[in-house]
Amino acid sequence: MRIAVLGTGGGGRAHAARLSELGHDVTVGTRDPERTMARTEADMMGNPPYPVWLADHPGIALATFADAAASADLVINGIDGANAVRELTAIGEHLDGKVLIDYAVPYEYNPDIPHKWETPWGWMPRLDPVDTDSLGERIQRALPRTRVVKACVTQEQETVVDPAGVGDGDHTMFVAGDDADAKAVVTELLRSYGWRDVLDLGPLACSRGMEMYAHMHTAIGLALGGRFGVKVVR
Amino acid sequence: MRIAVLGTGGGGRAHAARLSELGHDVTVGTRDPERTMARTEADMMGNPPYPVWLADHPGIALATFADAAASADLVINGIDGANAVRELTAIGEHLDGKVLIDYAVPYEYNPDIPHKWETPWGWMPRLDPVDTDSLGERIQRALPRTRVVKACVTQEQETVVDPAGVGDGDHTMFVAGDDADAKAVVTELLRSYGWRDVLDLGPLACSRGMEMYAHMHTAIGLALGGRFGVKVVR
Repeated sequence: MRIAVLGTGGGGRAHAARLSELGHDVTVGTRDPERTMARTEADMMGNPPYPVWLADHPGIALATFADAAASADLVINGIDGANAVRELTAIGEHLDGKVLIDYAVPYEYNPDIPHKWETPWGWMPRLDPVDTDSLGERIQRALPRTRVVKACVTQEQETVVDPAGVGDGDHTMFVAGDDADAKAVVTELLRSYGWRDVLDLGPLACSRGMEMYAHMHTAIGLALGGRFGVKVVR
Repeated sequence: MRIAVLGTGGGGRAHAARLSELGHDVTVGTRDPERTMARTEADMMGNPPYPVWLADHPGIALATFADAAASADLVINGIDGANAVRELTAIGEHLDGKVLIDYAVPYEYNPDIPHKWETPWGWMPRLDPVDTDSLGERIQRALPRTRVVKACVTQEQETVVDPAGVGDGDHTMFVAGDDADAKAVVTELLRSYGWRDVLDLGPLACSRGMEMYAHMHTAIGLALGGRFGVKVVR
C-alpha cells in the first residue's frame, strides 16, 4: 500500500520504519522538507536528527505534508496534537475519501515550560480538548470526507509497531471510528504489526476515553519503568 | 476490622456485603438513616430499596455518616463524586488519622438530564474536576489529616469485590496515595478480596488518570457487553 506518515517525530518514525519493513511504499510528510533535512540536532523528545534516522532507513521518501498525502492510499497522522487540525485542514483536499489513522494525544504544550515528564505530577501537559470532545472528533469535523480512525493511542509507539516485544504479545489495541470499512483496513494493518487482540470500541467519540487514558498510561509507565501493554480480560 | 462504608449505592453495598462476609464489623453510613430505611423504591441506578437489601445482609449496621465514621478504623467513601467533598468535610473530625479509600469518579450529574448511559456518547456525564486536578486530591486537601487512598476506581464494583469472577482473576487493581502505610493497609484489604495484582501508581495525583479512565472503561463495557478487567502486561 502507498502510505503517508505525517510528522517526523518518534511515533511517525516507528510507523514509517515498520511499514517500510513490511513492504509498503512509505512517504513521510513534513512541513518543510529542506528544513527537516538540514537538522543537525536531536528534537525536543531526544530523537536523533531526521537525516541521521533517514540514512538508516533507505527507501523511505520525504515530501511536504501535501505531496505525501496526495500520493497515498492511507495516511497516518503523526502531527502533534496542538497543530494537527490546522495542518490537516490545510491539506484537506488530499485527504478526501482516505483512511486517516490518528494516534495523537492532544497535549497542550506550553512553550514557557521546558518539555519534561517529571513525576506524577511535578509537571505534565494538560489535555485540550478533554472530556466532552477529543482531537479525533475535531479532525473528523474539520475533514468530513476523510475516514478518521483513532488507534495506536494507548501504547508507547515502540510497542504499537512491535506488540510482541511486551509479554507474549497478548495485550489489547483499541480502535474507534465512524466508518466500519476504514476500521477494517486499520485492523488489518494492525494485525500485520502483530496485534492479535484488536478491540473496536465503537464510534469516534470513543477517542475521548482513548486520549484521556494518557495520564493513566504515564502513571503506569512511571510506576513500572519499562515497556508494558494493557490486556482487556474478559 | 471496624469498617465504615459511606453511601448506600451499589458500590457501597458491594463493599459492605463482601467485608461483612470476610468477618469485618461493618457500618454503612447514610445522610439520614430513617429516610434510608423508609425507601420503598429502587434508586436512580436501579438498585433495590435499601431496606430490601439490608434484610438480605443481616449483621450490617446503618448509621449517620458521622456515627459510622466515628466508630471505624477504616472508612470507604462511596458518596457520589458531586457531594463527596462537602459530606466528608462535615464529618472531618471523625476521619482524622484514618485511612479513607475513595473509589468515586467525579461525574457532574445534571439534574436536567435523566440519568442514563446511552451510547458512546449519546449522553454521558462530564467529569469535574478533570485533567489538572482530581476528586481524590480534593478530598485530601479538604481533610489533610486523613490518609486518602484512591483505589477500586477502574472496575465495576461487582468486579472490585470479586476479581476472580472475571477471567481467571488475573487482572490489575490500581492504588494511589501519599501515605505508604495507608496504601499497605488498603493493599492487604484488596488481597483479601482476591486481588493478586495490585499496582501502586504512586502519589495521590495519579487519581487523575484513574478517574479519567472512566470514559475508556465505559466504552470497553459497551463494546463487550459484560464484565471485564484490565491487566497490565509487563
